[in-house]
Amino acid sequence: MSDRYATFANSGPGRALVKRLGLPDPPRLRRHTPGDELLPGPAHLGAAPGGRLVEPLRELLRATDVTLFGPDDTHPGAGALIFDATGITDSAGLRALYDFFHPRARSLTPSGRVIVFGTPFAACGTPREAAAQRALEGFVRSVGKEFGRGSTAQLVLVAPGGERAAESTLRFLLSGRSAYVSGQVVTVGAGEATPTADWDRPLDGRVALVTGAARGIGASIAAVLARDGAHVVALDVPAAGQALATVANSVAGTALQLDLTAADSPDRLVEHFTGRHGRVDIVVHNAGITRDKTLGRMDEHAWDTVIDVNLSSAERINSALLKGGLLPHGGRIVGVSSISGIAGNRGQTNYATSKAGVIGLVRATAPTLADLGVTVNAVAPGFIETEMTATVPVMLREAGRRLTSLSQGGLPVDVAETVAWLAAPGSSGVTGNVIRVCGQALMGA
Amino acid sequence: MSDRYATFANSGPGRALVKRLGLPDPPRLRRHTPGDELLPGPAHLGAAPGGRLVEPLRELLRATDVTLFGPDDTHPGAGALIFDATGITDSAGLRALYDFFHPRARSLTPSGRVIVFGTPFAACGTPREAAAQRALEGFVRSVGKEFGRGSTAQLVLVAPGGERAAESTLRFLLSGRSAYVSGQVVTVGAGEATPTADWDRPLDGRVALVTGAARGIGASIAAVLARDGAHVVALDVPAAGQALATVANSVAGTALQLDLTAADSPDRLVEHFTGRHGRVDIVVHNAGITRDKTLGRMDEHAWDTVIDVNLSSAERINSALLKGGLLPHGGRIVGVSSISGIAGNRGQTNYATSKAGVIGLVRATAPTLADLGVTVNAVAPGFIETEMTATVPVMLREAGRRLTSLSQGGLPVDVAETVAWLAAPGSSGVTGNVIRVCGQALMGA
Repeated sequence: MSDRYATFANSGPGRALVKRLGLPDPPRLRRHTPGDELLPGPAHLGAAPGGRLVEPLRELLRATDVTLFGPDDTHPGAGALIFDATGITDSAGLRALYDFFHPRARSLTPSGRVIVFGTPFAACGTPREAAAQRALEGFVRSVGKEFGRGSTAQLVLVAPGGERAAESTLRFLLSGRSAYVSGQVVTVGAGEATPTADWDRPLDGRVALVTGAARGIGASIAAVLARDGAHVVALDVPAAGQALATVANSVAGTALQLDLTAADSPDRLVEHFTGRHGRVDIVVHNAGITRDKTLGRMDEHAWDTVIDVNLSSAERINSALLKGGLLPHGGRIVGVSSISGIAGNRGQTNYATSKAGVIGLVRATAPTLADLGVTVNAVAPGFIETEMTATVPVMLREAGRRLTSLSQGGLPVDVAETVAWLAAPGSSGVTGNVIRVCGQALMGA
Repeated sequence: MSDRYATFANSGPGRALVKRLGLPDPPRLRRHTPGDELLPGPAHLGAAPGGRLVEPLRELLRATDVTLFGPDDTHPGAGALIFDATGITDSAGLRALYDFFHPRARSLTPSGRVIVFGTPFAACGTPREAAAQRALEGFVRSVGKEFGRGSTAQLVLVAPGGERAAESTLRFLLSGRSAYVSGQVVTVGAGEATPTADWDRPLDGRVALVTGAARGIGASIAAVLARDGAHVVALDVPAAGQALATVANSVAGTALQLDLTAADSPDRLVEHFTGRHGRVDIVVHNAGITRDKTLGRMDEHAWDTVIDVNLSSAERINSALLKGGLLPHGGRIVGVSSISGIAGNRGQTNYATSKAGVIGLVRATAPTLADLGVTVNAVAPGFIETEMTATVPVMLREAGRRLTSLSQGGLPVDVAETVAWLAAPGSSGVTGNVIRVCGQALMGA
């Protein structure tokens, strides 16, 4: 699906109309193409005194194609502003943020990146340190709303001992893969990351299951996982057979027609993977449906099927694959939640309940699978341009696009790239996270 | 402040959205006057099978003036729909929500109340239970956006062993005191609540400190705490002396002129309370300032003073009072955060950083003071009608009001009532919470 709105808005007549209506001008976002450099310009790297991440970060960056400005350089054209805030242990120390960002705030290129690194709440030694580290969230979210021109801002909390595990996250957030991810908090746990041989094909040799893969976001996830090297098993209901076959063929993967609400579907899944691959490394629970009605007018079937497809089926698949011993060390489970699951939505009590449940499932399952080396995370898409959102009434659609820091809707590929990052071997330290892919939508809880 | 919202609200789609989200006449909210009944009509009380809260709730309600409908009654005119969801242990069990709420969804009176009770994450026995319990958030937030007409919806998570500690929270959420609180998650910990002799004067005999009390939200907090029985020490800068004296006199309290950024202010505070009262039961860190500028244009003084007044001063006061042994068992600390601290805001990197820090301070301090019987919580106001917000440009102001489930801004008294609930002896089980007073504003993180 093409970036129709941004293309239109950046055309001659589009620009005129956008100006005339007084609408914010949606910037053209930098997206990833294989072979791209990580950044469109050199990066600034700074740190509050005593930061434990700045040297590991410098080393990680040395392994990339990113070049660094000198410490006192504030020249414009910066591709990224990267700041290690782990040395900040009280509120007065927050001044280090100002000292680094104030002179460089206007130096960022379009689609530039701001990444602040901090310490997770549980690892803070004192309430004052915890307060100062939590304060970073307010800073980063404000920067995301303020810097504009397609730039993004994130906070990455790295547990002590995880200093070297942040590479896959750093690369994702710097690159065009994270075009529509902004205002997010990512936690990286302790431990060494699984090494990555080829950053262009991090999923080489992996087997991935993508449910709901016949169209929209699911089809895009299949395509991106395959591009990154995975063999993709694309699953959808039998009724979507033709579209599913097209997707599976286009990624040189396998089509699997299965109704996830059928009682025998977990067994059939286990059977498929046991017979063909003996394992499944990556499970993406993307299948999802909506049956919107206000609660007083909703029939029980609309409640039951939405909960069952969007939440219960993921629980059943996880259980069956685990029981079948099919999720190996290094396994990855990615759920698909939604902004509706975070903020709630009128007419979507069933959908929002199911998608909030996905968040709970991910948070609760992650620690139980940590010992097995399996990570569990979720993405929460905001307004993504799909066939599904194309049916949203025009005014609400326009609002969904505009009430974001990036002034536009996202593309399916933006969700897919985020899934691919979470699915990568190098993301072994990232578990229990819920990452919004929403262009820093205003909407939240 | 963001001109993005103003620009949007001024555009064609923006106007349409504002119209769609807000009613032409925002509902008149039910607010509390001493002597009011808790509810404008009888309540429905229901439970999922196996719920551990429904009987304790029935008993708590018996001690109030609330009457209950029979179990199969779905007559209109319900003042509240109260549901114990603690019995839900997997996603299929969520159907109990539908079964209770679907037939009653349209029975709620204007300014009615929806309260769902659940189990905190840490107390859930299995990932499936945790998923189902987390799903309740999506349900409640959707209901808050859907039911309208001044109704509110909340999720109260009660730890096992805290079944009888929920009374002050239940009363607050049912009453007109919580008029502008909606879409919130409140956690009540284990243990018995401190008994309350008189629910109309729960703060009888307590000494309260309110900083920034000369006007706006602070003056209202002083008034409500005094109405509820507290002796209020109203603090503000010397320059606000006249207004401060007026507030202190009107609540028969004490005025204390003090610049919290002065080095000797913690000592002077300790001196004041040691000499006059020997203690301070309730501390409300309300003092706050804004110095809005985008980061590139912000001078260092604007950064430093905002951080110091809004965050560091609260840290210093807490430390000094604790060191001075002035916070007794039953003590209450309430911080004032902000939606900006949660969601970030353009032009407010300093303010949002400080207000996010308040959240961190509350969350980190609460467990350290639990053994002392001191609770620590925060309120996070959304758009509140004050002199400060009266200077906000008209379209932005209108957006701030309309982009909420209650279609209007809140009043200072709405924040004050929430503070009074957190400050009450009966709220001993409520600690480490951050409660938004925002009319379920769309804005969030």
